[in-house]
Amino acid sequence: MSAPLFNALLELADDHLILGHRVSEWCGHAPLLEEDLAMPNMALDMIGAARSLYTYAGEIEGEGRDEDQLAYLRYDREYKNCLLVERPNEDFAHTMLKQLYFAAFMHPYWEAALQSNDETVRGIAGKSVKEVAYHIRHAGEWVVRLGDGTEESAKRMQDAVTELHPYVEELFHMSADAQAAADKGALPDREAMRTQWTNSISNVFDQAKLTMPEVEYPQLGGRTGHHGEEMGHLLSELQYMQRAYPNMSW
Amino acid sequence: MSAPLFNALLELADDHLILGHRVSEWCGHAPLLEEDLAMPNMALDMIGAARSLYTYAGEIEGEGRDEDQLAYLRYDREYKNCLLVERPNEDFAHTMLKQLYFAAFMHPYWEAALQSNDETVRGIAGKSVKEVAYHIRHAGEWVVRLGDGTEESAKRMQDAVTELHPYVEELFHMSADAQAAADKGALPDREAMRTQWTNSISNVFDQAKLTMPEVEYPQLGGRTGHHGEEMGHLLSELQYMQRAYPNMSW
Repeated sequence: MSAPLFNALLELADDHLILGHRVSEWCGHAPLLEEDLAMPNMALDMIGAARSLYTYAGEIEGEGRDEDQLAYLRYDREYKNCLLVERPNEDFAHTMLKQLYFAAFMHPYWEAALQSNDETVRGIAGKSVKEVAYHIRHAGEWVVRLGDGTEESAKRMQDAVTELHPYVEELFHMSADAQAAADKGALPDREAMRTQWTNSISNVFDQAKLTMPEVEYPQLGGRTGHHGEEMGHLLSELQYMQRAYPNMSW
Repeated sequence: MSAPLFNALLELADDHLILGHRVSEWCGHAPLLEEDLAMPNMALDMIGAARSLYTYAGEIEGEGRDEDQLAYLRYDREYKNCLLVERPNEDFAHTMLKQLYFAAFMHPYWEAALQSNDETVRGIAGKSVKEVAYHIRHAGEWVVRLGDGTEESAKRMQDAVTELHPYVEELFHMSADAQAAADKGALPDREAMRTQWTNSISNVFDQAKLTMPEVEYPQLGGRTGHHGEEMGHLLSELQYMQRAYPNMSW
């Protein structure tokens, strides 16, 4: 089962790398000094999880690829992240909602992964579950503050919900690789997180006075490498150092 | 004098490549179909001039670097373009004003370069002077239309003037390399374009009802490789294909 677990780990790793990169774009641009520290810290949490996942994926693959090669030296169609995490930051409302959506999924996911029969997965889950609990609280507080804030902030928050909600379904989507890894007991079943995710989000939305939209056409495709235009721009920046200075060491 | 001419040609080539890239960013995003054709065509004019200039610079250097290596495989501090051309597009007002400022400089510059004692320079000038005459007319018409347009468009146009005017001085600035190339009669003296530039712009500004600002602190540094933050983002995209697929052929 090494190929399916390798691919399923890449799905997870790419989600964390790409969202970590997006959050890191706020570094030096956040609206408050406190956030200017909090955002890069959360980005580092996610990029840290990506490192562990890439390293383990590389070991499973057994072809000598390390975390840097997997993170920086693939082409766009080889990235398996869901479309949600690559969406542009736009404003603080979009950014915080995206973070909340992702963290509200990852928290029960990592909790379930503590029961994995794979020791390395359990180790990564044990570290990540604590970090992501903070991400939910932090992003959730912002979603409430903006959603139940001024007329302008409430409108922006609801706009963000309308734009990002179609990307939620892909979090629960099981690729054949994710299914094979779940069947073997190595990784959790993504579908099983739906109830907890919905409860978490409903709870925040009630306080934020936001409406949960009906999604007629969920946006899928990231897991099979079909990304949006923004992904090319993101990768150009993400990969630039490694591409311009191949195999550099600090 | 090969090193000064090489460097002075790179100043010119980088100006054209970087502004050509900026204008190409409008491809598929222009507000009218006609502009969606006109903008990429002007970008191609400028990238075409850059090609000729890089190729000639590479010959003079004599180290076997071709146009692709000079355009794509240098590091940010090695680019010698003036800061004006790397400024972000922002909106149509900024974009057209930047184009006008640059073209109003390049037109008399290429006209003067028709008298160069360097045959290759004369050849490039002969082709470019016709193209840039159209760029002045096209950009000038937009600056008038927006400056003497609605309240919103006039405000945006004047904002663009305020933001971009500090970058004009660098067009006339003579680096030691440009001075050496001018002293030898290979390239024109940039300072000599000031009167014609000012006349062209004053003429457009009168029709556009725009005010020419006083600039207390001109922005210099591009010629010595001291670029703005935006230049790194631009190069990440500009160089991505060549960096990701080194030495590719189509």
